[in-house]
Amino acid sequence: MDRLKLDWTHLTADAVGPDHGITEAELEALREPSAAALRAVRARAEQDLRFQTLPYDLETHGRIAEYAEAQRGRFENIVVLGIGGSALGNRALHTAMHSPFHELFPGEGLPRLFVLDNVDPDLIGEFLDRVDPSTCLFNVISKSGSTAETMSQFLVFRRALIERLGEEAHVEHVVVTTDARTGVLRPIVEEAGYASFEVPDGVGGRFSVLSPVGLVSSALIGIDTLGLLKGAAHMDERCRTEDLLENPALLYAAAQTLMQREKGKPIAVTFAYGHRLRHLADWYAQLVAESIGKRLDRAGREVFTGPTPVRAVGVTDQHSQVQLYVEGPHDKWFTLLAIDQPDHQVAIPTDFTDRDALAYLGGRGMGELFHAEREGTRIALTEAGRPNLTLSFPRVTEHTLGQYLYLMELAVAVMGEHYGIDAFDQPGVEAGKVAAYALMGREGYEARRAEIEAARSQRTPRVCG
Amino acid sequence: MDRLKLDWTHLTADAVGPDHGITEAELEALREPSAAALRAVRARAEQDLRFQTLPYDLETHGRIAEYAEAQRGRFENIVVLGIGGSALGNRALHTAMHSPFHELFPGEGLPRLFVLDNVDPDLIGEFLDRVDPSTCLFNVISKSGSTAETMSQFLVFRRALIERLGEEAHVEHVVVTTDARTGVLRPIVEEAGYASFEVPDGVGGRFSVLSPVGLVSSALIGIDTLGLLKGAAHMDERCRTEDLLENPALLYAAAQTLMQREKGKPIAVTFAYGHRLRHLADWYAQLVAESIGKRLDRAGREVFTGPTPVRAVGVTDQHSQVQLYVEGPHDKWFTLLAIDQPDHQVAIPTDFTDRDALAYLGGRGMGELFHAEREGTRIALTEAGRPNLTLSFPRVTEHTLGQYLYLMELAVAVMGEHYGIDAFDQPGVEAGKVAAYALMGREGYEARRAEIEAARSQRTPRVCG
Repeated sequence: MDRLKLDWTHLTADAVGPDHGITEAELEALREPSAAALRAVRARAEQDLRFQTLPYDLETHGRIAEYAEAQRGRFENIVVLGIGGSALGNRALHTAMHSPFHELFPGEGLPRLFVLDNVDPDLIGEFLDRVDPSTCLFNVISKSGSTAETMSQFLVFRRALIERLGEEAHVEHVVVTTDARTGVLRPIVEEAGYASFEVPDGVGGRFSVLSPVGLVSSALIGIDTLGLLKGAAHMDERCRTEDLLENPALLYAAAQTLMQREKGKPIAVTFAYGHRLRHLADWYAQLVAESIGKRLDRAGREVFTGPTPVRAVGVTDQHSQVQLYVEGPHDKWFTLLAIDQPDHQVAIPTDFTDRDALAYLGGRGMGELFHAEREGTRIALTEAGRPNLTLSFPRVTEHTLGQYLYLMELAVAVMGEHYGIDAFDQPGVEAGKVAAYALMGREGYEARRAEIEAARSQRTPRVCG
Repeated sequence: MDRLKLDWTHLTADAVGPDHGITEAELEALREPSAAALRAVRARAEQDLRFQTLPYDLETHGRIAEYAEAQRGRFENIVVLGIGGSALGNRALHTAMHSPFHELFPGEGLPRLFVLDNVDPDLIGEFLDRVDPSTCLFNVISKSGSTAETMSQFLVFRRALIERLGEEAHVEHVVVTTDARTGVLRPIVEEAGYASFEVPDGVGGRFSVLSPVGLVSSALIGIDTLGLLKGAAHMDERCRTEDLLENPALLYAAAQTLMQREKGKPIAVTFAYGHRLRHLADWYAQLVAESIGKRLDRAGREVFTGPTPVRAVGVTDQHSQVQLYVEGPHDKWFTLLAIDQPDHQVAIPTDFTDRDALAYLGGRGMGELFHAEREGTRIALTEAGRPNLTLSFPRVTEHTLGQYLYLMELAVAVMGEHYGIDAFDQPGVEAGKVAAYALMGREGYEARRAEIEAARSQRTPRVCG
């Protein structure tokens, strides 16, 4: 069976020297804390870290599959109205499993997928202008139902549907994923009679891709969601061992922790070699940034910690970011996502063989070139003392994707223990939300608005315009 | 006329405190060096910094416009075969000026644009499987003609065209942008009789968007390329003054320099508020990373310097990265790209007014919400002591885009002076290329290959798999 492989040869002091690479002693010192962290995380699997139970929730999966089956052939377009954890996983799975040109050529009776994770009027307005809502099924995703972006989109598209189809018929064009009992959307679901699924308790938004949040849209576009769950369950089993070197989640969490804490590298680059993997890097960026980026540790001390995730795509960004990666500050470590076996073979023709700059390409596969460039970059990074780990997908399948998603979720939960912070809240998002409410004139936020206006009037504007 | 505006109120010590914000004294100390840097850069406008002359090259522009006019209605698809500086500007202009759904609904006889800046077989193979090459015009862009990615694509698509259309007819489906005299592609152009344009001397790849590199594909998809040049020329005029506070390029270069050198912030976030602006951040990431990310200063001393560009999209990444930005390490500064006046208005319907979480949205424009969220985030960043600058586009037009592109090019050239490095080379890319050649078995790289194999055999693999 296809198993993800973590090659950390070039993360070590052996490969990149002791200033930048992990020593045996450093790794040894994290052995017991890693085992303890795993126990702590595992102990909460039925409480606030219920993402660990999702791979086994076949009952929910069955309901999703049944719903998706009943919708087959009914809609040209599936439209996700969600943002952050209610969008990034959905997009990542679509990009990984479908053609880059899927929306142009959906083929085989499959619908298109649009993930509208913004309230930019130039995005939403264009969609309204060009896509007939009666060809769409809207998957509204918000646990609380109070996410301003998602709810304003819901109001807009619900009205567009009703105008086009009438109050009664519009109902079939909406499926809501929200809290089972509380929140704004649940009573709306009950009144209107929308199809709905539940965001399970104890599963944070950024850990919810394997819940109905990520599975409903995936099932609707023909992804094998059971394969995802099986892959995740496989990784869950693999991550039972407390042996740091045998447990991929413990190993990855240790790598991140040591790179930031011991090697002074605040930047974590996910370098996705493969168009299909590129949105996994976006999904992971949210997971790690929101989980570990924290002002306070668990004792309430100011620590201002957390890695900054950077997303790159290979080979593309070799011609954009690699100059900096190889020669710039020693403040980064790298995770290369690799695909051992691409789905396509493209032969490079043997033409212009008299030209030295072309002759070596002819007769080779484009996959060989792609692989040589990844290896070349890996070698250049290593020789420049830049620690890097290669995480390989034997092939990109639902099973290996499920493995990856679960691996990273568990690794980030373990990182939370190493960093000593609460990986499951996001207090820093609140301030901006409140200020936006105040600026929008929401009831109850008048005092904040007055405060903002006072601050503005006191400050001298500095403008070059 | 629409002028870009730089609001740096919240970059100052006044706004975010002296640990994180720029003081008057720091700015004052950069006044004379800024003027000197500008003179140094301006003095090279006819030598190796010829990007400064591009806004005025109306003769070349005329030839491009004429060529594009002659192709009107002939092709369904324009396909850029290029990478790095031969792709990022092309994509950024397309995204800024066209609908996000342009490829699905090109409308008005305009072709689609595909920028295939990778050799991922799963990308190129899918394109070959799904798009008939006889509907495409391929714009091959490489100054030297030895870029492995672009040339392997050229070999593949040239052969596909010839198989479909024959040797003679295929010629009309290719337009090459390459060096006027030297390199691998020029003689191929001459032999085959392809249409061609020149990458001008003294213009580095990442500074070439306003040359035929960026203009040919733009003209072919109906972008007002003259507007781009006029906008750039307008910014060029605006950046004649040596007064730091009046010259946007000097101001931006000073901001970046002070943020990294005096405030210890190695990460530069471009936070694009607006789907249309998001690929500008990708274009800028290459410009600044390759230009400033350097191991050696001009005296040959090891400095390992350069900011790490990070790309974010508002409001989307508020639900992904803002937690980290507000609460994480004080190692970032922010450039918010803003649009004063979006092209679309989307009204949020007044429904469910009995629900507090929805009532404040009804009757407002989505643009108001979008604006309030940007301001809310800006306020949260500022209050958390995170310095930020807002660069506003009054509207997104060819003119304002031209202003932006030129502003950033000039600012990065000036940064090169402040950082004391050569902003116009990219020695760090070479190592990876050479290793890839060696792995591909290119003639002349046998010794390097042996070296790589020896290194591999000596190192103990560390794998969790």
